[in-house]
Amino acid sequence: IEPDTFRIAATAMIDYIINYNKEIGNRQTFPDVQPGFMRNLLRAEAPKVGESWEDVYSDIERVVMQGMTHWVAPGFFAYFPAALSFPALLADLLCGGAPCIGFSWAASPSCTEMETVMMDWLAKALDLPPCFIHGRHGPGGGVIQGTATESMLVTMIAARNKVISRELSRDPKLSKYDILPRMVVYTSDCSHSSVEKVGLLSMIEVRKLSAGRKGVLRRKTLQDAIDKDKKNNKIPTFVCATLGTTPCCTYDNVDEIGRICKFIEDIWLHIDAAYAGAALICPEFRHIADGIKRATSFNLNLHKWLMVNFDCSGLWVRDSSYLTDSANVNALFLEHQTQQTTIDYRHWQIPLGRRYGSLKIWFVLCMVGIDGLQTHVRRFYHVRRGVAEAKYFENLVRKDERFEIVFPVTLGLVCLKLKRPGLNIEENAINEELNRKIQADRRIHLVPSIVHGIYFLRVATGSVNCSRQALDNCWDVIREMSQLV
Amino acid sequence: IEPDTFRIAATAMIDYIINYNKEIGNRQTFPDVQPGFMRNLLRAEAPKVGESWEDVYSDIERVVMQGMTHWVAPGFFAYFPAALSFPALLADLLCGGAPCIGFSWAASPSCTEMETVMMDWLAKALDLPPCFIHGRHGPGGGVIQGTATESMLVTMIAARNKVISRELSRDPKLSKYDILPRMVVYTSDCSHSSVEKVGLLSMIEVRKLSAGRKGVLRRKTLQDAIDKDKKNNKIPTFVCATLGTTPCCTYDNVDEIGRICKFIEDIWLHIDAAYAGAALICPEFRHIADGIKRATSFNLNLHKWLMVNFDCSGLWVRDSSYLTDSANVNALFLEHQTQQTTIDYRHWQIPLGRRYGSLKIWFVLCMVGIDGLQTHVRRFYHVRRGVAEAKYFENLVRKDERFEIVFPVTLGLVCLKLKRPGLNIEENAINEELNRKIQADRRIHLVPSIVHGIYFLRVATGSVNCSRQALDNCWDVIREMSQLV
Repeated sequence: IEPDTFRIAATAMIDYIINYNKEIGNRQTFPDVQPGFMRNLLRAEAPKVGESWEDVYSDIERVVMQGMTHWVAPGFFAYFPAALSFPALLADLLCGGAPCIGFSWAASPSCTEMETVMMDWLAKALDLPPCFIHGRHGPGGGVIQGTATESMLVTMIAARNKVISRELSRDPKLSKYDILPRMVVYTSDCSHSSVEKVGLLSMIEVRKLSAGRKGVLRRKTLQDAIDKDKKNNKIPTFVCATLGTTPCCTYDNVDEIGRICKFIEDIWLHIDAAYAGAALICPEFRHIADGIKRATSFNLNLHKWLMVNFDCSGLWVRDSSYLTDSANVNALFLEHQTQQTTIDYRHWQIPLGRRYGSLKIWFVLCMVGIDGLQTHVRRFYHVRRGVAEAKYFENLVRKDERFEIVFPVTLGLVCLKLKRPGLNIEENAINEELNRKIQADRRIHLVPSIVHGIYFLRVATGSVNCSRQALDNCWDVIREMSQLV
Repeated sequence: IEPDTFRIAATAMIDYIINYNKEIGNRQTFPDVQPGFMRNLLRAEAPKVGESWEDVYSDIERVVMQGMTHWVAPGFFAYFPAALSFPALLADLLCGGAPCIGFSWAASPSCTEMETVMMDWLAKALDLPPCFIHGRHGPGGGVIQGTATESMLVTMIAARNKVISRELSRDPKLSKYDILPRMVVYTSDCSHSSVEKVGLLSMIEVRKLSAGRKGVLRRKTLQDAIDKDKKNNKIPTFVCATLGTTPCCTYDNVDEIGRICKFIEDIWLHIDAAYAGAALICPEFRHIADGIKRATSFNLNLHKWLMVNFDCSGLWVRDSSYLTDSANVNALFLEHQTQQTTIDYRHWQIPLGRRYGSLKIWFVLCMVGIDGLQTHVRRFYHVRRGVAEAKYFENLVRKDERFEIVFPVTLGLVCLKLKRPGLNIEENAINEELNRKIQADRRIHLVPSIVHGIYFLRVATGSVNCSRQALDNCWDVIREMSQLV
């Protein structure tokens, strides 16, 4: 299509997006469609001749919206929220309209250099330890990954490589294949499923240690597991500690764990702060990361809470050479004159190609400012101010004695269940039934979880259109449905 | 920022993009900046208070454009082109402005279902074998990956898992760690560096077999390597055959290789058609993929030649259970009622989260049509019609007897070198000097390559603003610089 047509079509799309967000409250959060619904709405093959943009736009409601789960709807409390901000959308336009693929410094110097500066801006705004800042001229720094899983994969593989190098230097007669089966990764049973997934991909055994009733991994549990493994000739390789676990938003004790990894053993400590890391932008939440200075790597999904649209996951490492050594493959066509003195981010990630992703961080940080991000984060969190949405919802629940808050509400997640005297299994069955009723009702959308054998409902606040009215409505639905179980 | 401000800012950004592309010919393709330039252009920390969008926009020229390598400039011939199309930009807007993270069917049914239908539309448009089509109700189908490297990683790990399962079923006393060191991956020495990189990540040994002077992997070379390995108790696991190699755009003999992988041995055959796969949309190019019906998986980067902006890499597999079995980790919060009958694409990829990426395929296929894509592809390729840009450039080179075309020009890549009688090493040195002169001159940007010890220059046509004038200019620069060596 021609530039003039593009201008008209883009203007129409911008209006569509503005209206979508303005009137999102009128849409049903979770759709009624059945599997396979879209085959009947679309042709069997692509059209031979191109259609007008008006034809395609008219199909957005008929085809796309019919089966959307609306992540920014006020009735959406299912997963940690997906960021949506206008500054990030503007940057996405620029990123797509003036394209470059920044696999090396030379492939687009701006793309690489802005990323290093933005990762430093973020590290300073989050008060991360200096070892994670590029500008300090140490071996550390930050990089944009797609998701937390990719951050987990590159760090676990770097740790694998580090251990293999260390063991080979101690005993050159070994093969890497002798060392791999001895490696062990530790994490808690409240950690994200990506730890297990990455363990399978890396072929490293993963121990899911008990985080107990409180959902917190502590010193003794970890040290006992390490001691037992070492007796069995295993090699503790990598610990993933979580700040803000997905099922219950609890915090592993990074201070205790870090001391073990750094002072007692020599283990890569990765901090998965995909969700809760955003809170570090507010000084009053920084205590959750006490001891972070002993971490080897730190990950935060900007696309959850920091107003940068998916995908944008920040990974900071203490020593980038562990990343770049683990899969550094070169080709002549990728070489350039300045590669000794510049960063080639392709060696910090799995893919070769990469977008100019720091543009959207730059737009958000400049247009929103640190103050603006702090206000955004505080809006949903449990703070002294009276504006916190999650705290508001917690108070609604606490007023009804039939319900129980299962974990402390510290950020944007509220975990609750119906109480029933007697066996856990009976109480779980009642809450499972409550969940089914809520799903069938369709006015709100949430998902359940299980920790330490206790089944409960998760209400994740913080989507861009969350409000007290939305939370009142959510609570009305839960109470109404609870009458039916 | 408020919706009304967003509308104004977005309109300004759209004009910026239109003008950027219209006047790209006035920009220097490769920038003059030195490493570290951007630190001096940006503050040391993010602003405390948000700025206006006008402030940020005024920095686009001052900061971003100063260090851009302009991939869509008419002087850009360095890498295979980055797609840029207005329909894809419109879809990106919708994808960002009405966000969903489609890790499961329930997380957004439209996101998953449109992807299955779009991958089928593409498979039909490219005339891929029926085993790769979802709608045929076999175990095969397509999925969007970020890049060709990620496609390589998920398929190589699936092949690893398949071989481990097979060997364990033959001898249950084995451990997977006994089998891994015996596995071998085969590819040619003209293949993309991602094969080696993924081999390192997967810890599988990679054999780079000689593609010879013609850059083509043939039957005998592969069979000899397999036979030798089997004698040494190795397990041939995975073959990556390339259609359109990065250094020289040659085609491995998929017909011969497929017969070995399917009939003689039992080896996963992955076709890396990241670049040349787009040509299959034109019937006259489909002979390059003869024998593709025996492939296990097939990959094509839509973000190179099919007008879909980065990132969008299509992967088709014959049997998706190999993907889903290799890293299937579940969590209660990800479960949903229809998971037995629907696709959860998170099991087909490394990350958990994923964008609604099929929107941009849908927009491009509908607004451009198959005819439009064929015209786009034919514009640059060597065809009967008189419009092919690469053929035009080849003819310019062939008229100058000091130069030689190094590989047949079949699609959009022209490989050339200055001829010098005598030793290869002397000829290489002269062409290296020619490359340095061209880089220093800055009017055009290209990169060199080496195949079978021969150093040459690559001119990759096909960027969205390529034209005869741009090619005339490119040839003028090369000839002018050749006078100086």
